[in-house]
Amino acid sequence: MSALQILHRDPGSQARAGVLRVAHGEVRTPAFVPLATKGTVKGLEPREVAALGYDMVLGNTFHLFLEPGPDLIARFDGLHEFMGWRRPIITDSGGFQVFSMGHGTVADEIKGRAPSGPDRIGRVLAIDEQGVRFRSYIDGSERFMGPETSMEVQAKLGSDIALVFDECTPFHVDREYTARSTQRTHRWLDRCLAWHDANGSQDQLVYGIVQGGVHEDLRIASAQEVAGRGVGGIAIGGSLGGEKAQMYEVVGWAISGIDEARPRHLLGIGDVDDLIRGVELGVDTFDCAMPTRLGRHGVAIVPDPAGRWRVDLTAARHKESHEPIMEGCPCPACSAGHSRGYLRYLLKNRELTAVRLLTLHNLAYLARLMAGLRAAIAAGTLATQAAALRAGAAP
Amino acid sequence: MSALQILHRDPGSQARAGVLRVAHGEVRTPAFVPLATKGTVKGLEPREVAALGYDMVLGNTFHLFLEPGPDLIARFDGLHEFMGWRRPIITDSGGFQVFSMGHGTVADEIKGRAPSGPDRIGRVLAIDEQGVRFRSYIDGSERFMGPETSMEVQAKLGSDIALVFDECTPFHVDREYTARSTQRTHRWLDRCLAWHDANGSQDQLVYGIVQGGVHEDLRIASAQEVAGRGVGGIAIGGSLGGEKAQMYEVVGWAISGIDEARPRHLLGIGDVDDLIRGVELGVDTFDCAMPTRLGRHGVAIVPDPAGRWRVDLTAARHKESHEPIMEGCPCPACSAGHSRGYLRYLLKNRELTAVRLLTLHNLAYLARLMAGLRAAIAAGTLATQAAALRAGAAP
Repeated sequence: MSALQILHRDPGSQARAGVLRVAHGEVRTPAFVPLATKGTVKGLEPREVAALGYDMVLGNTFHLFLEPGPDLIARFDGLHEFMGWRRPIITDSGGFQVFSMGHGTVADEIKGRAPSGPDRIGRVLAIDEQGVRFRSYIDGSERFMGPETSMEVQAKLGSDIALVFDECTPFHVDREYTARSTQRTHRWLDRCLAWHDANGSQDQLVYGIVQGGVHEDLRIASAQEVAGRGVGGIAIGGSLGGEKAQMYEVVGWAISGIDEARPRHLLGIGDVDDLIRGVELGVDTFDCAMPTRLGRHGVAIVPDPAGRWRVDLTAARHKESHEPIMEGCPCPACSAGHSRGYLRYLLKNRELTAVRLLTLHNLAYLARLMAGLRAAIAAGTLATQAAALRAGAAP
Repeated sequence: MSALQILHRDPGSQARAGVLRVAHGEVRTPAFVPLATKGTVKGLEPREVAALGYDMVLGNTFHLFLEPGPDLIARFDGLHEFMGWRRPIITDSGGFQVFSMGHGTVADEIKGRAPSGPDRIGRVLAIDEQGVRFRSYIDGSERFMGPETSMEVQAKLGSDIALVFDECTPFHVDREYTARSTQRTHRWLDRCLAWHDANGSQDQLVYGIVQGGVHEDLRIASAQEVAGRGVGGIAIGGSLGGEKAQMYEVVGWAISGIDEARPRHLLGIGDVDDLIRGVELGVDTFDCAMPTRLGRHGVAIVPDPAGRWRVDLTAARHKESHEPIMEGCPCPACSAGHSRGYLRYLLKNRELTAVRLLTLHNLAYLARLMAGLRAAIAAGTLATQAAALRAGAAP
């Protein structure tokens, strides 16, 4: 039986709305999942994240593996208790990060940007069929992560949903490399499931990961192969192409290979237009560093398609602005009446308060966006709602 | 008529409890005043500071003078509206900071520590009777601040209480320098009051500043001279000595020269034991960077006299600790159940969430301490309460 109960379907697209039931509660879908990379959504407390309307956060297996380590978190009764978030948690596999070290910055690859210089999170020593040996960015020690390690770490973290360890195929490689890499991902999937069957908890749902790069046949085959293993859900990973049109195409191929009942997660995608399109394509959950990372850099999400839904509040033109980030916005920053001029001043002075206010605003924006999309699917008005949002309507 | 209404007096000490009435509301005294150096209590929002039980914050004239500048803040209708804190604000004069540039770190001097290396906030070009010329730490431009500048800036900020511009006499100088410096402070007081009489708002209370170093006769004479000018209140500034016993003595001398009705503010003092003793000596309000600065460095205030009321949560011994910062503490960090082990992990990873949680804890601690002292004065139990707190009772 699927953990996802589909309650409403949009007649004009693949979109669906429902409830994902996992060990620590329910996640209303489609949902955006904020990142709690290192045991906290940066700058926020669990009660604040919940108050914004979020049901689930994503914990980062790679970082938590290195520090404070899964054994310590296990002695705190798992990640939920350690960080004080008692709602659902999904953990990634660590694969994205370990391969980032080898391939440059995979995030750039996925989004089709040029690799951004030397790697910041460590160094890969060897990749083979067993897994990846690398140097820890914390103390330079040699570490290893493979499929079994990843599942064992995630078991100790006690997340509601674990992702299998995959090779995150980069963008710049050829079709043959992509095909070989995708096959390795499938072999690692088998090892992850074997480890989980033997050692894991029934309370933890395991999601497989679809790879296949930007090749239609490889994506569809990967999706079918992963879905055929009877995983609890499927995450779409790896390179999604160099531009948005290609990304939507790739996501569509992947989903076409997944059976209807299985929950689908889209990894690392969180732009406003991408969330709307992703929902139409039938994605149930999304995670992305974008809203929190943008907030830390002084960029707020606003209903402005021409400006890519972003406004940079550090810009000089906001210096004397009495305007809020966004007129009529009910978020904690806007409803307190803080002006763009004040926020710009705080940002220029690197005040934590500004980072927090922008993080709250950005996450509140995406929470409302997703709640609106869920309501529209339920009401049968998704096409109208999506068109209005794309034209710049406030969520 | 004094802005301070004294409601209760402690029979065994000089302590008093009452209400300080200023333009934006009432301040329950004795009170600790958190620093909102650059338009925010670092990491917190105004509603949070108010929820902790604080009636007033301190804005920093020097920093706000340089950036964003008093004219911009005036165009936002003053500091209250700019930062969204609509309760009382006291602003310092900027004198402490401009003299810090010339004298090394005055904060170290006041606390009797060795000067801590090269100055971080700018460079003094000249000090004379007119005021101080210095280089801005922001853009290297040449700036000037004197008594009239300070009062004009504070008028534009629109604070409820302005402090006069003084020469903050350092610790290492001799008696003769101290005497001359104190006389200059008195001449500058006259110029500040003249500017305020001619240009200031009746809604803004002006506090004079007592100097006189660690010399009994100079301190008493300075206090009498400043009080004799009919100022709205008196702040005790400058070097208070090399150790706590001397500091208490100096504060006692200063207060002995001030008439009973006049509100008294003690500048830059906020250790738990110093607050208790300061209240007994008859201080009405205190400000200090300590609770917020300690929080940013991972140090929490706890009821531990032997440990100087501090615990460093970055220490390795907290790594596996399930204990809260402080058992039974009702602050947002402790009541959420966050463990020392979790906080240490966040601190080691420089997560903003930890800075916030410790700042909230520390400010909550001092808010409860002061509320308890006020209640004890009202109940006539201050001696018992002070003894218990000194022995390590929770506030």
